[in-house]
Amino acid sequence: MNDPKLSSVQTRMFQAKAQRKLSFEKIGEELGCNEVYAASIFYGQAKPTEAEIKRLCEILNIPTGHLVEEMGEHFYPSRGGLMPMPPTDPTLYRFIEMIQVFGYPLKAIIHEKFGDGIMSAIDFKANVDKVRKKRHG
Amino acid sequence: MNDPKLSSVQTRMFQAKAQRKLSFEKIGEELGCNEVYAASIFYGQAKPTEAEIKRLCEILNIPTGHLVEEMGEHFYPSRGGLMPMPPTDPTLYRFIEMIQVFGYPLKAIIHEKFGDGIMSAIDFKANVDKVRKKRHG
Amino acid sequence: MNDPKLSSVQTRMFQAKAQRKLSFEKIGEELGCNEVYAASIFYGQAKPTEAEIKRLCEILNIPTGHLVEEMGEHFYPSRGGLMPMPPTDPTLYRFIEMIQVFGYPLKAIIHEKFGDGIMSAIDFKANVDKVRKKRHG
Amino acid sequence: MNDPKLSSVQTRMFQAKAQRKLSFEKIGEELGCNEVYAASIFYGQAKPTEAEIKRLCEILNIPTGHLVEEMGEHFYPSRGGLMPMPPTDPTLYRFIEMIQVFGYPLKAIIHEKFGDGIMSAIDFKANVDKVRKKRHG
Amino acid sequence: MNDPKLSSVQTRMFQAKAQRKLSFEKIGEELGCNEVYAASIFYGQAKPTEAEIKRLCEILNIPTGHLVEEMGEHFYPSRGGLMPMPPTDPTLYRFIEMIQVFGYPLKAIIHEKFGDGIMSAIDFKANVDKVRKKRHG
Amino acid sequence: MNDPKLSSVQTRMFQAKAQRKLSFEKIGEELGCNEVYAASIFYGQAKPTEAEIKRLCEILNIPTGHLVEEMGEHFYPSRGGLMPMPPTDPTLYRFIEMIQVFGYPLKAIIHEKFGDGIMSAIDFKANVDKVRKKRHG
Amino acid sequence: MNDPKLSSVQTRMFQAKAQRKLSFEKIGEELGCNEVYAASIFYGQAKPTEAEIKRLCEILNIPTGHLVEEMGEHFYPSRGGLMPMPPTDPTLYRFIEMIQVFGYPLKAIIHEKFGDGIMSAIDFKANVDKVRKKRHG
Amino acid sequence: MNDPKLSSVQTRMFQAKAQRKLSFEKIGEELGCNEVYAASIFYGQAKPTEAEIKRLCEILNIPTGHLVEEMGEHFYPSRGGLMPMPPTDPTLYRFIEMIQVFGYPLKAIIHEKFGDGIMSAIDFKANVDKVRKKRHG
Amino acid sequence: MNDPKLSSVQTRMFQAKAQRKLSFEKIGEELGCNEVYAASIFYGQAKPTEAEIKRLCEILNIPTGHLVEEMGEHFYPSRGGLMPMPPTDPTLYRFIEMIQVFGYPLKAIIHEKFGDGIMSAIDFKANVDKVRKKRHG
Amino acid sequence: MNDPKLSSVQTRMFQAKAQRKLSFEKIGEELGCNEVYAASIFYGQAKPTEAEIKRLCEILNIPTGHLVEEMGEHFYPSRGGLMPMPPTDPTLYRFIEMIQVFGYPLKAIIHEKFGDGIMSAIDFKANVDKVRKKRHG
Repeated sequence: MNDPKLSSVQTRMFQAKAQRKLSFEKIGEELGCNEVYAASIFYGQAKPTEAEIKRLCEILNIPTGHLVEEMGEHFYPSRGGLMPMPPTDPTLYRFIEMIQVFGYPLKAIIHEKFGDGIMSAIDFKANVDKVRKKRHG
Repeated sequence: MNDPKLSSVQTRMFQAKAQRKLSFEKIGEELGCNEVYAASIFYGQAKPTEAEIKRLCEILNIPTGHLVEEMGEHFYPSRGGLMPMPPTDPTLYRFIEMIQVFGYPLKAIIHEKFGDGIMSAIDFKANVDKVRKKRHG
Repeated sequence: MNDPKLSSVQTRMFQAKAQRKLSFEKIGEELGCNEVYAASIFYGQAKPTEAEIKRLCEILNIPTGHLVEEMGEHFYPSRGGLMPMPPTDPTLYRFIEMIQVFGYPLKAIIHEKFGDGIMSAIDFKANVDKVRKKRHG
Repeated sequence: MNDPKLSSVQTRMFQAKAQRKLSFEKIGEELGCNEVYAASIFYGQAKPTEAEIKRLCEILNIPTGHLVEEMGEHFYPSRGGLMPMPPTDPTLYRFIEMIQVFGYPLKAIIHEKFGDGIMSAIDFKANVDKVRKKRHG
Repeated sequence: MNDPKLSSVQTRMFQAKAQRKLSFEKIGEELGCNEVYAASIFYGQAKPTEAEIKRLCEILNIPTGHLVEEMGEHFYPSRGGLMPMPPTDPTLYRFIEMIQVFGYPLKAIIHEKFGDGIMSAIDFKANVDKVRKKRHG
Repeated sequence: MNDPKLSSVQTRMFQAKAQRKLSFEKIGEELGCNEVYAASIFYGQAKPTEAEIKRLCEILNIPTGHLVEEMGEHFYPSRGGLMPMPPTDPTLYRFIEMIQVFGYPLKAIIHEKFGDGIMSAIDFKANVDKVRKKRHG
Repeated sequence: MNDPKLSSVQTRMFQAKAQRKLSFEKIGEELGCNEVYAASIFYGQAKPTEAEIKRLCEILNIPTGHLVEEMGEHFYPSRGGLMPMPPTDPTLYRFIEMIQVFGYPLKAIIHEKFGDGIMSAIDFKANVDKVRKKRHG
Repeated sequence: MNDPKLSSVQTRMFQAKAQRKLSFEKIGEELGCNEVYAASIFYGQAKPTEAEIKRLCEILNIPTGHLVEEMGEHFYPSRGGLMPMPPTDPTLYRFIEMIQVFGYPLKAIIHEKFGDGIMSAIDFKANVDKVRKKRHG
Repeated sequence: MNDPKLSSVQTRMFQAKAQRKLSFEKIGEELGCNEVYAASIFYGQAKPTEAEIKRLCEILNIPTGHLVEEMGEHFYPSRGGLMPMPPTDPTLYRFIEMIQVFGYPLKAIIHEKFGDGIMSAIDFKANVDKVRKKRHG
Repeated sequence: MNDPKLSSVQTRMFQAKAQRKLSFEKIGEELGCNEVYAASIFYGQAKPTEAEIKRLCEILNIPTGHLVEEMGEHFYPSRGGLMPMPPTDPTLYRFIEMIQVFGYPLKAIIHEKFGDGIMSAIDFKANVDKVRKKRHG
């Protein structure tokens, strides 16, 4: 199967989140951060601060020891590698499709507006909102 | 080299755009559509309406015949294929990196908010704006 | 070997199905759904409703706890990834062969009939029936 | 770009079809065959009979010489190879997605119903019809 | 290393075969089938009939229970996937080399002799015999 | 499309063969060699002897100059590379499927019969005959 | 062969450089920039300023028109894609080997020294100097 | 996830390093070697001398037995293989990006300065220092 | 990490060799065979004779039972698959580099000297000797 | 087809060699270098000295101008890339097979004899001689 492999600490975090019926939006609010950033901590894709680890353990009711050991001072994420490329899951694949189709148009507009710069994927910030379908354009 | 191959009509469109110093933002305004959609017509990734073809020819001062023949009623784009996967261009690659790192977090949030749905890559709408760098979250 | 990896709950479902000599057609009837959809629950490719989980446990005589834990409210399938691409199994490979050979013809006809739309793979519905072989066309 | 490469004869066939505003459904009716089979002749994926070549030339108003030379007695199609794998075009990719998600369920049902057989991809027959969207199952 | 992964039942079958110093030719004779077909049962590539399972257990002196559970009524092989492609083992690679070199010649002759047909890989029957080396042709 | 690229001399050989309605079986008889070997000369996969080149030119009514220049004393074929791997053409793919499914069974039998030897793909000799379909074994 | 494909303007630049026996070090000095940056303009991997284009044309004795058309205001490089990955050329491959072997050690040290940052590949600056071989460490 | 797999001895070395809050720079000083070389011992990418093993065990307070058994006289590293290619981690990927963009420029300058030589990846020596960002060149 | 996976018997053989400080050259002498052949037995790439197994067990002071069970009469090596392709280890990669660079030159010379033959990789015999570096040619 | 692409100068060199019935062994003798090195000049894999270019033009009766322009002072070969990996030609593939089978044994012996060194693929020197087949070892 195709689920990303989680460490035992990450599995425990997801289970605690499920039992407490917490959404990432809620966890983000509690941590004082974006919901996508909050979720990326659960998937081992971000390096939380000490304060974030402490707060996260309170929210999830998990002892801080395990999280500190796995995500503490010495931890720097080896990012990516959670999915095959291209991903087989349709929800994930749609992102790839966007880049296949709109990648060069976006690159052209980025350069037109900002010159020879590169958008930072790490400072990336996304919001997920439902949009009522409109015709193209 | 790594530039997407353009048809002779597409090349002419890009040259006319360059000579008239038109941005895709400006062309989008003239066509009454999003700038990313406008750019995707230039790259053969979208099917313009007859009215859009006519207006585009006026904006670029190109005879409509060629555009109609290439992008007219019988044309349906074979989308994608403009770049190798993963793309080697850093600006394009950053999009892939976002998905590698934030793909599963975004999928989790999409499902939390909207259930088992799939974001449509075709009805996708993007805006490109400069954002003053903020710390994560 | 080439079998898709199943979770222990999925393995139990397949064993119960085998012991009770239930076909997916029969299970689909009991669940009130298409047989392909019923089978895709067994392979972790669909998100069953709470009612479907409950009914499935009755049909298979399995306690609902395990299924709810694995396929309950918090579960959203990471679809795909069950087979290598292209698949080596001849029965699965024939589907790929169809797309290799008839993909562009089907795309042309889809666009001729419905314009620039995309068939939804998720709302996909298939029936499997024996067809007496006819000459092409 | 991503369009399948066509021979000069095939290009002429597509142009004649466009000028006469013929659909593949119409051409199929005229040839006395399925529309998908008719389209697959245009893409060089099927071997037309002598009678089909003759009738096709009448329908498209093309001299039979070129078609006979390219698709005549000595022609046996080298099938496939029109698209990259996986295809980048969303309409084509959806077929792959179906197999990724529903491939094993379909294999299981095929074997349940017909034993250890293999569906023939060559005798494959498809119909393209608009289906009003229904909930799964 | 490069050996195909065998299930515990398959391993037991190979061990019993080794202890009894049975060749696949001998096993095929006992089963009343071709030696290649007999070997493909050991590798999980064929679906034996109930009678074949029973006879096989007698030949190998293995209780039928395990074989029935693994290869019985509900079993349909997920064929292939035993080797990397191209295979690294020289004996296996030579088959690929034959197809690389003689594939198109064989396709041309198959079509010349039998028209647009496809040789069935499943009904495939091979004999392995030593041939005294002759010059080509 | 998917046809192997032929040199201009090879194209001429195929055209002469078509015009004279010669089969590879017939050409092989005339050359005094196996039909598969004869066809492999047309595809540039074999090194014909001087006598074979001379005889081939008589059979096809082609001046020997071109064939000598392309396939003469200094020519040693760079074999393979005519098809993608795995091949997309169903007739060619079936050979791959055979190896996927029956490769290890054949290897086991080859070693049982002949020890640690390797079948020579170059001295390979095939006959193509229609076989009335029999049940497995 | 394996050389990166150059545009006709780039070819002319390399020829002029060869005729004038100019090194990239010399050209960099004349342009007032790093030699690696100077070379990357020749390979279409950097966007030169207007002043750099003008100065480059003087150094190489090439009319500015062609360079402006190819590398002027509207040009933004589609970077990368000059070599296969991994590169087959030994000099280029050694860079990959360094990353294979020393990539994780370097990542560990970068994070130890600078935290969760990412070295910018675009602001990258290299010097090429001969170093007398020392024992490791 | 994407972390390189470590042996149990390597894991112990990393844990000891973390507990003692030792940086690779510090360890390198203690060993009398470059920090990158020191880190590459931890990742199994370098062959330490007997003296280095002994000193390393003192620094980390680990008994020498395990290190000698794993990295002693008979050990020669099978280098590389710690990351997928291209690596998904952004910090590691930036190195690849450098080579994609600046590889040919560097090759050209290496040859200009040193002739047809090849930089040794094994005698490679790197220093990691923070550089205040400068404009290109 | 990148080491070839060894069976427990092979691991024992390597450990015994290490403890006894035996080189493959020495073992080859004792077995009466080439050192490369001797090493290839340790890596499971060659089929030792019964006499070689017996002598090997004496040399390594290992009971013959395990070796006979793993490498005895019924064992035929599934060769290759010990390394990724291309290998990441520099020592192994250099062999690939040789073939990339000198492969066609060697093929040309082999054909010039011996006609359309193929060097046997299995009867391959290598000697490893230090050669004082000479200028090319 | 599968032949390495040659530049027009290289093609001319091969034609002159064929017309004069020169072997690479003979050309190597005339150039005062190894035959493999001589052949690698023809394939663009080596950088000949000025003296070698001059002598080569005398041997082949070609004006030096073209060779100097293509292989002169400014030329540094982009090595490799002449064949697909793995190569489909059996003669070339056998080299790969050797590395697959004997690569780790050779690495082990190289390290045993010479320590942690790497054989230079560039200073590589080969001789091609017919060896009377001996049993392994």
